[in-house]
Amino acid sequence: MIVLLEANGRQGDVDLPASIAGHVIIAGYGRVGQMIGSVLGAQEVPCLALETNTDVVARFRHRGASIFFGDASRADLLRKIDIERAGAFVTTMDSPSAAERVVEEVHRNWPHVPIYARARDVSHATHLIARGATRVVPETIEASLQLSELVLIGAGVPNDAARHLIEVRRQAEQVALDVSWGRRSG
Amino acid sequence: MIVLLEANGRQGDVDLPASIAGHVIIAGYGRVGQMIGSVLGAQEVPCLALETNTDVVARFRHRGASIFFGDASRADLLRKIDIERAGAFVTTMDSPSAAERVVEEVHRNWPHVPIYARARDVSHATHLIARGATRVVPETIEASLQLSELVLIGAGVPNDAARHLIEVRRQAEQVALDVSWGRRSG
Repeated sequence: MIVLLEANGRQGDVDLPASIAGHVIIAGYGRVGQMIGSVLGAQEVPCLALETNTDVVARFRHRGASIFFGDASRADLLRKIDIERAGAFVTTMDSPSAAERVVEEVHRNWPHVPIYARARDVSHATHLIARGATRVVPETIEASLQLSELVLIGAGVPNDAARHLIEVRRQAEQVALDVSWGRRSG
Repeated sequence: MIVLLEANGRQGDVDLPASIAGHVIIAGYGRVGQMIGSVLGAQEVPCLALETNTDVVARFRHRGASIFFGDASRADLLRKIDIERAGAFVTTMDSPSAAERVVEEVHRNWPHVPIYARARDVSHATHLIARGATRVVPETIEASLQLSELVLIGAGVPNDAARHLIEVRRQAEQVALDVSWGRRSG
């Protein structure tokens, strides 16, 4: 049993297993975090979420989610949810600067934990990579790719071919992001 | 030859074919529009872009793109680029309210032209559907899906299986958006 701050600010016992490993920590449980939690949960990937909005914590706790109140940039809090044995850490927060702080803190303390980060755009993505994010997903790129796929299909490109073209492009964009940061750091 | 306003505000001849059809009109040529233009161009899908930033228009015109200065909510401008025979219309603008205006105008005048729209989030998406958008791509949903896919793969789910799971979820989200608007309109 681990003691964490509950949504109401008091300390409370939470039903974490005595030892957990391979879990995914989701930092931020707004719309993005909730969808990730739902997709992973459907595949029985164990998740723990941290969220600073007490209403959200209360609502999802009530539904049985492993969600805790707290700032994901606090190393002591991350330690309590066994981040050193986590399979992945995902930042989903709206605020670009908050995401950067969290990525920096996690990468500095637990460089072996892969960090997946939501980014606003390419510029934000390069900041997150520079702070240690393993993979970044810029919203503007994803929207562009998905719109392109839909228009290609509408223009008569078969579904599978369109998806393949988009996947190739997505990978090229990821490489470009990595290279772009590599150059800056060199 | 069609006369359109050039980037400098003067009228100028542009090298549109005398009659075009099946082209994709891209409203807004920022980062999102540029990527869509690039993906479609690589597949030789003919595109015409409208953009209100004169620097962007000048830069891409210089590179040979079919890009014109102008507000995509102006029906007279859209008529000049043969929207009635376009294969698709895509809104990519940052501003939610601008996107809604454009979708409304295009759908009212040319209801047979499919409209693909970038949306900020689910709430914005429902507004765009209500105004006539055929397919909407909410940035937050796309980022969530892509992050989920990456984490699933990281957790050991094979690539193809992860992509399939995400595609099924994407379609469910699209149906939910349509139903959500259908209910509101009923």
